[in-house]
Amino acid sequence: MFTMKPIGFVSSPYKETLEFPKGPGAKHDALGVLEIKPEFEVGLTDIEGSHLFIIWVFDRANGFDLIGIPPTDNREHGAFATLSPRRTNPIGLTVVQLLSREAPLLHVQGLDSLDGTPILDIKPYLSGVPTDQLRCGWMHAARNELHRDQKTYSQNRRALI
Amino acid sequence: MFTMKPIGFVSSPYKETLEFPKGPGAKHDALGVLEIKPEFEVGLTDIEGSHLFIIWVFDRANGFDLIGIPPTDNREHGAFATLSPRRTNPIGLTVVQLLSREAPLLHVQGLDSLDGTPILDIKPYLSGVPTDQLRCGWMHAARNELHRDQKTYSQNRRALI
Repeated sequence: MFTMKPIGFVSSPYKETLEFPKGPGAKHDALGVLEIKPEFEVGLTDIEGSHLFIIWVFDRANGFDLIGIPPTDNREHGAFATLSPRRTNPIGLTVVQLLSREAPLLHVQGLDSLDGTPILDIKPYLSGVPTDQLRCGWMHAARNELHRDQKTYSQNRRALI
Repeated sequence: MFTMKPIGFVSSPYKETLEFPKGPGAKHDALGVLEIKPEFEVGLTDIEGSHLFIIWVFDRANGFDLIGIPPTDNREHGAFATLSPRRTNPIGLTVVQLLSREAPLLHVQGLDSLDGTPILDIKPYLSGVPTDQLRCGWMHAARNELHRDQKTYSQNRRALI
């Protein structure tokens, strides 16, 4: 058992989970502030890079499901293969763009957590996996289906016009 | 306060921190196994993508420093701007390549944690920040200095030959 203590809280435009953009293709470009507690401000020295990892707690999730249907598909997948908030340890991970810093306040873009979310850690985003080396498993199949459905929809729509 | 419980443990070739490749340009391509507890195996359903995020605990770190000199530089930086194990919440984050799965055992490449490290969460790696949009702050400056030093070294070496 490990005990974690918030280093600060997210100030986000999302007050309720219903307000999140959901489903395949949903964009997360919300602006907000990471309000780090003043006693940890010195830990932010030289944080100024373009992107950061934020590790936070789904503090309003209640319990967990090992398997479930995510909003991006109509089939069940394991919790560790999805971003479900109902996880064994309710930990969230977000990559945000750092826009500016005012002492212990980090103004960021790309939030996907609720207002008041406790922050556990911040890490520099140093490099990513090149797109051509990335395969996303079931999500890739779900995305392809979405594209096919959208194509069919637009073809059907054209037929109607 | 949030209490976290391991979902499994890392089986890694690194038994001691001294064995890690360190410093700028260090490569982390170690092979190992994420040994997930059998009771959580169903949560791995459809995990088969190319890359995963592993969230784990620096369980052998003792206390934290808000500022320190990382092995990649000779200047002090804030803990949240580095990957220091001595963090306010001792959480580690690694991107690994998933090579294969045997029931609750995930064979992976790219480990940078010690043998026996407790795993808190696994998430799918869906997309990264394009390299041309990435700026790494102080680490960029440190890397450039390293390249300059290497160049000077190889020029000096050539002069000797």
